[in-house]
This record gives sequence, structure tokens and C-alpha cells, in this order.
Amino acid sequence: MDSSGLLALSQERQSQVDAVLARFFSLAKNRAAAFGPQYVALWETLENNTIGGKRFRPRMVMCAYDALGGTDLEAAAYVGAAFELLHTALIVHDDVIDNDFVRRGSPNISGTYRDRALAAGATQRAADHSGISAAVIAGDLALFNSYRLIDRSGVSGEIRTRLIEVMDDALFASAAGELIDVDFSMLPEVPRVDDILTMERLKTAVYSFECPLQAGAILAGASDEVVATLGDFGREIGIAYQIVDDLLGVFGLESETGKTTIGDLREGKRTVMIAYATSTREWASVEPVFGTEDLTEADAARIRDVLVGCGAKNFTEGLARYYTNRALARLAEPHIPPALRLELHPLADDVLGRVK
Amino acid sequence: MDSSGLLALSQERQSQVDAVLARFFSLAKNRAAAFGPQYVALWETLENNTIGGKRFRPRMVMCAYDALGGTDLEAAAYVGAAFELLHTALIVHDDVIDNDFVRRGSPNISGTYRDRALAAGATQRAADHSGISAAVIAGDLALFNSYRLIDRSGVSGEIRTRLIEVMDDALFASAAGELIDVDFSMLPEVPRVDDILTMERLKTAVYSFECPLQAGAILAGASDEVVATLGDFGREIGIAYQIVDDLLGVFGLESETGKTTIGDLREGKRTVMIAYATSTREWASVEPVFGTEDLTEADAARIRDVLVGCGAKNFTEGLARYYTNRALARLAEPHIPPALRLELHPLADDVLGRVK
Repeated sequence: MDSSGLLALSQERQSQVDAVLARFFSLAKNRAAAFGPQYVALWETLENNTIGGKRFRPRMVMCAYDALGGTDLEAAAYVGAAFELLHTALIVHDDVIDNDFVRRGSPNISGTYRDRALAAGATQRAADHSGISAAVIAGDLALFNSYRLIDRSGVSGEIRTRLIEVMDDALFASAAGELIDVDFSMLPEVPRVDDILTMERLKTAVYSFECPLQAGAILAGASDEVVATLGDFGREIGIAYQIVDDLLGVFGLESETGKTTIGDLREGKRTVMIAYATSTREWASVEPVFGTEDLTEADAARIRDVLVGCGAKNFTEGLARYYTNRALARLAEPHIPPALRLELHPLADDVLGRVK
Repeated sequence: MDSSGLLALSQERQSQVDAVLARFFSLAKNRAAAFGPQYVALWETLENNTIGGKRFRPRMVMCAYDALGGTDLEAAAYVGAAFELLHTALIVHDDVIDNDFVRRGSPNISGTYRDRALAAGATQRAADHSGISAAVIAGDLALFNSYRLIDRSGVSGEIRTRLIEVMDDALFASAAGELIDVDFSMLPEVPRVDDILTMERLKTAVYSFECPLQAGAILAGASDEVVATLGDFGREIGIAYQIVDDLLGVFGLESETGKTTIGDLREGKRTVMIAYATSTREWASVEPVFGTEDLTEADAARIRDVLVGCGAKNFTEGLARYYTNRALARLAEPHIPPALRLELHPLADDVLGRVK
């Protein structure tokens, strides 16, 4: 299939997932109406927080399902939507944990409710409380309903049980990763490269790559061997993706990533690249400004120079390539059907392509 | 059955639920061990937060189930444990919303983690962050797994679907009630009596009484009519329970309730009784001290005098009696089996008995 064919396929899948989510939220809002307009507004805010995403996790589900011969694309869209809702729940609660009111430049649920309360004349403290409360509640609703969407996909019996187990694995790992991340934030020193890799894998890669790919394969009735290999592929490519994401957070083009390349440096985000850099002599010259709120563009440029000069950028790019190659090696295994290889190879290329 | 027989029955049921929860946490801790000791510790903290409860919601499930002829008490214990875990999730996240680090005089999950971080030398801010993070994560795990316990009960097909729907109703209502509660806290004026009743019903009574009773009946294969009537009974008795709970928060005996009778007054908790009182002329004399942190025992005594003098206490007791009578009227309906009436009548008596 040429790349425009792939694009059309991906858009078709995305619109199926969008339709499932639109139906889910429409039902929820109708049901909420009996509890008053405020509750409908909360569901609307939650819905708005799922719109405009890249539907990354549903894509994982659907491409595995499709390439493994699955034919009930609507069921796959439901399972994909379940992972999208799990993702929403996790980022909404992650923002509560980090006391963030903004995500990617726009107010998140906390921010929306805080701004609304401030506009209505609330004190800052009361407005913050309103924001955080709405986010805790909305995240709970998203989490619980991610589970429900598996049921609504119409699957039953053994397949349903295994899908729920994969969802469970996803949350179980993500909670473990979130906990490690919080523990890291209490440490004065930057953790080691491998500890950061483990944390990022658990917190994000497992539920974003490993589990959605496995869910798609299970739904398609794939063999245990294929499901396991897809999990391995997802884990490796997920780690690579996280590494690249952190690279782009400092070296990316704002026009492409939609994120500033100064935010992570101001926040003092402890990435693999930073962990590597802190082990070098060069780091000392920029350490005092790293993680300071008033870090300037000039400071950021100096840090970038150090990250290049000390070899951290190079090392990190190499690490991303290493994990991508490991992922590709899994795809080369003989029990992986060619159609699946054809679906997932471009994905691996995309991940690395983002660094170039 | 005499009252010692009832007590033995209730203890037997409670130990069955305890056994289910112990097994669930034991499995979770084994599984968490692969992610490191901190994750095991989080599960232990969550487990400790479910121990020592009155297993109120499981009792609702099991008494409905048993009285309606159910014989698989282990399945009922699983469904009961599911509601217990839902309850844990909701109170853990409610404490996050209220920024509370203590519940009933002991550190909750946030408090446990905050204290641990402080002892390890963290700043107050970092320690608070650690506490709230642990509570958000632990609540998510409890919420997700409340759903899982329904599956582990071994039920399937139509009964499973209906049980999940009842769990969904429970969370859906509780989230609506929590949202209204947060909105109330932003209002300068005390809401009206009926608005407070609605909020308390949604936030607590639905998931504590209405839904667990319905779940027990569904599991026992009861008719739709019986399930509906039990829901009605649960709603009425649940409202009565909440009203009595708020009365005891001000007039109860600390030795019996385990709660101080000054906490609600210091917090300025807006209960039905307070809503009534604020509509009277007498309230003006104590309004300035109500809801102040440094409210003294003498202030509390003055407020209690006003609550008695203005008729608020009397009105509130009358309201509790009214809802209890409405609940009992549902039990008198002809399609309610005598065994169920025998189980639930003492419950209604208990609720009112707490006021005397």
C-alpha cells in the first residue's frame, strides 16, 4: 500500500473511533441531564479533553487487529476507544498529581474549572479547589468507563476476559510508573538512565503501545505467540518513543511538536538525556539554571550546547535507535504475518523519523 | 431469629467479605512485587485503608442476597467486596478533593505518605505532593478493581451485565453528588434543605444503600419488581442515614461515633440541620463563629443550644423519622418476601436508634 493509502486507512480508523467516543459521550450527557446542567457540563469538559488527540492508542489496537485478519472494525473501534479513555483518565489525574492547570498550552479540566470559578468571582484558593475537584471526578468517570467500553464492544467469553486483563495490566503498570515518578521528584539527585527508562516504560509505554497492540491481536484471535511478540515490539518501540519525545522536548521544532522547547528545561524534567548529561563534567556550567522558572532563551541555548557537547544528545539518539532496532527485530520473527509487518514497520520509522 | 443469631450471621458474612478482600490484596501485592517494594507498600497502605471498616455496603449486598434465597455466599461476598472497594476509592479521592490528610482521627493515604516523606526530610510542599499523589493513584487502583471483583465473583451473562450496570449507576450518581458538593462549597450562602438532601443522596446514599441492595437482589435472581422496591427502600433509608449521620456529627457521643462533635461545626459543614437553622432568626447570634477554625467548646455548646432552640434539631430528627417510615412502607409491599422484611427491618430500626 502506498503512503496515501495508509493515510486514508488511518483516517478511516480514526473516524470510527471518533464515532464510538461521540456516541459514548452523547449517551453519558443525556444520562447526566437528569442530575442537572452542571453535570452535563462536566461530561462536556471531559469530552473536549478527548477531542483533537491523535488517537494514538486506538490506532495501535486497530492496526494490529486489521493486519491480523480481524473484520469487525466496529468492535476494534470500541476497544481502541477504551484505551483512549484510559489515556484521558491517566493524563487528567497526572495533571492533578502535578498540580498542572494547563496541558499543551490550553487549559486542562482543572484549568477550565479554575478559570470559570475565577470569572464567577471565586478566590484563587476556591477556584483551584474547584478545578482540582472537577479533574479528580472527571478522571474517575473516564477510568471506570474505559472498562465499560470493552463490554460495549460486544465481545464476550474468553476474549473479553483477556481484553480486560490487558486493560488491567495497563493500569497496573501505569500506576507503578506514576508512583516511581513521584518518588523521583523527591530525590535531590537525578536518577540513573536505566531507572528513568523503567519509569517511563511503566508510566506511559505499557498502556500506550504494549497493551493496545496486544488487545488488537487478542480481539483478532491471534495466537499467544503473536500476542507475546507484539507486546515485546510495543515495549521496545514505546521506550524509543518516550526517549524521542524527551529529545523533542528540548531540541524539537515547536511548529511540529506543539510544545515549547523551553518548558521541560524550566521544569527541570529528568529525562534519559539529562541523566546522561549530569554524569559528565560539562554539566556543572549549566546546572544552576536547569529547572529554574526564570530560565531564559539564552540559558536554554547554553544548555542545548552542553547537551550536544557532552555527548548526551548523541547518546540519547543512539539509545532511541537501539530500541527501535530491537523493536524491528521482533517484527522480523517468522510467526509475524507480513501484513502486520507492513503495518508496524512505518510506525517504527515514524518514531525515529521524528529525531531527524 | 433472635438478635444474637442476627449478630452471628452478620459476623459470618463480614468474615467472608474480609477473606475475599484479603485474597484480592494478597494477589495484588504479589503482582506489585515485580515493580519494586514501593509499589507493594502502596498496595499495603490501600489495604490498611479498607481494614476495620464496618463493611456496611457488603452487608447490604449479602443480606438482600441471603434473604432472597441466594445460596452462593462466596459470589455475594465478591460482589460485596466490589462495593467496599468502590467505597474506598470514593473516600480516598474525596479526601484528595477536600485536601484532607486525616480521616476519623487517623492519617489517611495522603496523610500516611505525607508523614513518611516528612520523616525522610522532605519539605512540607514536597511531602504534601507525595501524599496527594499516592492517594490519587491508590484511588484509581481501587476504582478499577472494584469493577474487576464483579468478574471474579464468577457471575456471567445477563446477571453480570446487570451487576456492572448497578456499579455504573453507583459511580455515576456519586460523581454527580460530589460535583454538587464542590459547587455548594463555592456558594456564600447555605443551600436549601432539599438541595442538600439531593446532594447527600447522590454522593453517598445511592452507592451505599440503593445499589448494594439492588446488586444483592439481582445476584439472587429476584424479580425486577423486588429489585426496584429494594432500590426505593435503599434510597429512603440511605437519606435517613445521612441525616442521622449529620445530627450525630453535632449531637452524637464521641465514644459511640468515633468522631468529635466539634469537627463539623469548625468545618462549617452545611447539613440539613444547619440549612434549617440558617432560615431562622436565632441563627444570627452564632453565625459569626460557625465554620471558624478556632471555634471553642463553649461556642459549640452555644450553637447546639441555638440548634435546639430554633427547632432545627427537632425538624431534622423528624425528617429522619419521615424517611425511615417511607423506607419501612416499601418493605410492607406484598411482593417483598418475609425473610427480606425480617433482614431489613432491624436495619431501619438501627438507623433511627442512633438518634435516640
